[in-house]
Amino acid sequence: MMAFSEQMEADLSMIEPVLRRCFQDREPRAGLYEAMTYSLLAGGKRIRPILTLETCRMCGGNPEQALPFACAVEMIHTYSLIHDDLPCMDDDDLRRGRPTNHKVFGEAMAVLAGDGLLTAAFELALSARDLEPGRMVAATACLAAAAGDRGMVGGQALDIAAEGRGISQKELEQLQTLKTGALISAAAEIGCIVAGGSREQREAVSLYARKLGRAFQIRDDMLDVEGDEKTLGKTVGSDNANEKATFVTMLGLNACRDVVSRLTEEAVSALSQFEHPEFLHRLAETLIDRKK
Amino acid sequence: MMAFSEQMEADLSMIEPVLRRCFQDREPRAGLYEAMTYSLLAGGKRIRPILTLETCRMCGGNPEQALPFACAVEMIHTYSLIHDDLPCMDDDDLRRGRPTNHKVFGEAMAVLAGDGLLTAAFELALSARDLEPGRMVAATACLAAAAGDRGMVGGQALDIAAEGRGISQKELEQLQTLKTGALISAAAEIGCIVAGGSREQREAVSLYARKLGRAFQIRDDMLDVEGDEKTLGKTVGSDNANEKATFVTMLGLNACRDVVSRLTEEAVSALSQFEHPEFLHRLAETLIDRKK
Repeated sequence: MMAFSEQMEADLSMIEPVLRRCFQDREPRAGLYEAMTYSLLAGGKRIRPILTLETCRMCGGNPEQALPFACAVEMIHTYSLIHDDLPCMDDDDLRRGRPTNHKVFGEAMAVLAGDGLLTAAFELALSARDLEPGRMVAATACLAAAAGDRGMVGGQALDIAAEGRGISQKELEQLQTLKTGALISAAAEIGCIVAGGSREQREAVSLYARKLGRAFQIRDDMLDVEGDEKTLGKTVGSDNANEKATFVTMLGLNACRDVVSRLTEEAVSALSQFEHPEFLHRLAETLIDRKK
Repeated sequence: MMAFSEQMEADLSMIEPVLRRCFQDREPRAGLYEAMTYSLLAGGKRIRPILTLETCRMCGGNPEQALPFACAVEMIHTYSLIHDDLPCMDDDDLRRGRPTNHKVFGEAMAVLAGDGLLTAAFELALSARDLEPGRMVAATACLAAAAGDRGMVGGQALDIAAEGRGISQKELEQLQTLKTGALISAAAEIGCIVAGGSREQREAVSLYARKLGRAFQIRDDMLDVEGDEKTLGKTVGSDNANEKATFVTMLGLNACRDVVSRLTEEAVSALSQFEHPEFLHRLAETLIDRKK
C-alpha cells in the first residue's frame, strides 16, 4: 500500500486537473467563468473529494468512476463558501488568503458564480461515464439531499438565525451537523455508492465522516481563536466579531481539544469492518493536527 | 380530446399539489421553508411545467412520470426570480403582485431560499419513480445544462454586464436565449425524454419552445412598457429605470408585435410532425395575447 502522503498526492493529481479543465473551453460569459474558477481553484484542502475517492477505493470500487462526483462535491462546497461570504451573509473579506469572491467580482457576479457552481456540480455528476445509471441516480440524489434544505442550506438558515443571539450547545450541534456535516457525510457515502458498497459499509463511512466533520468544525472554531491570520488565510476572530456562538465560546479551548480527540477516535473505530482503513485513519489524525 | 382550458386546468391540478406538498412535512429551519414556499406558491403561470407535461403527452408518454421533472423546472424558474430580484441584481420590490422575497425575508434568507429551491429541484427530479434510470439521468442532465453556466446562469451574467451600456440586437438575442430560452427549451425537451421520444421529436419540441420563449420574452418587454402595474403585479417601467436594453427600446412596439406574430407562427410550424399538436398551438397563441 502507498504511503499516506503519496496517496494524498495521487488523489489530488486526479482531482485538480478535472477542476482546472471544467470550464476551460467555454465561451466567455462576461466574467462568470473567471469568478467561478477564482474560488474553485483557490487552493482548498480538497478533503471532501479525497474522501469520495478513498471511500470508493476502500469499498472495492474504481476511484476513476467516483471522480466526477468527488469534484461535484468540491464545487458545492465552493459555492457555499462564496454565498456564505456575501455581505448579506457573513460579510467576510478574506478567504484562503485572498479577497473573497464578491470583493473581486462584485456581489451580483458572486451570487451567480455560486449558482453556476451549484448547477455545474449536478451537470458534472450526471456526466459520469461507464457507471450504471441506477448508481448514478443514487449518488447524485445523495449529493442533492445533503446540499439542500434538509442539509447544508438548512444549516445555513439556522446559522443566520443564530447570529447575535444565544443558542444552546444542542442547537449549535444541529446547526453544524447540517451546515458542514451533511456534505462531508455525503462525500464519503457517494464513494461507497459508486463502488456498489453494502448498506453497512455506507452507514460506516457516513458515521466516520460525521465524526470527522464535527472534529473538523470544532478545530476550525479553535483556529479562529488561536490561529495566525497569515497561516490561516482568513480573518481571525471573525466569529467573535460576528457574535457567533462556537464550541470555543461555549466550552473553552481545553474542553474543545478533548472533544476533538474523542471524535477522532470514534471516527477511526467506525471503520473497523474494513480491511484497509489506514488512509482514512491517517486523514482523521492529520486533520485535527492541522494549523490551518 | 379535451378542450384547451380544461386540459390546462387538468395539468395545473397535477402540478400545484406537488409544489404545495413539497416542503410540507419538513422540520422548521428558521424560516427557510416559509421563504421558499412564499415564492414557489406565488401564483406563477406554470408555463414551464405545463410544457413538460404536454410534450410528454404529445410524444406518447405518461405525464405522471414527467411530473417531478415538471415541478423541478418550476423550482429552478422560481429560484432564478428570487436571485434576480436581489438588491445586488435587478433590485426589484414587486413580483407577481407581492413584495419580492428579500423584501419579506431579508437578503440572506432570499439567497438561501434560491439556493434551496435550486437544490430541491434536483432532489425532486431524482426522486421520480417507475422511470428507467437512464432516462432519469438524461432528463436531469438536460435540466442542469439548461439552468447552468451555458444556459440560464450564463444569460444572467451577460444581463448584468449589459446593464447601463448599449448592446446590439444580436447580443440581446443571445442574452435572452440563454437567460429565458434555455430553461423553456429544457422544459419541453424533458417531457420528450421522459416519454422516450425520438431525436427528431426532441429537436422539434426544442425549436417550438425556443421560438415560444423568444416571443414570450418580447411580449414581456412590451408589457413592461404598455402594461398596467396592477394587472401585471410587478413594477412597470423598471427596464427603462434600470437602463435595460430590450427589444422595445431597440425596435419599437409595432415592430415587436410583428416579431412576436412571426415567432408564434414558426413555433406552431415546428410541431408539424406530431399527430396532436393542438394544445401546444393554443398555448403559443394564448401566451402572446396575454395581458400579464
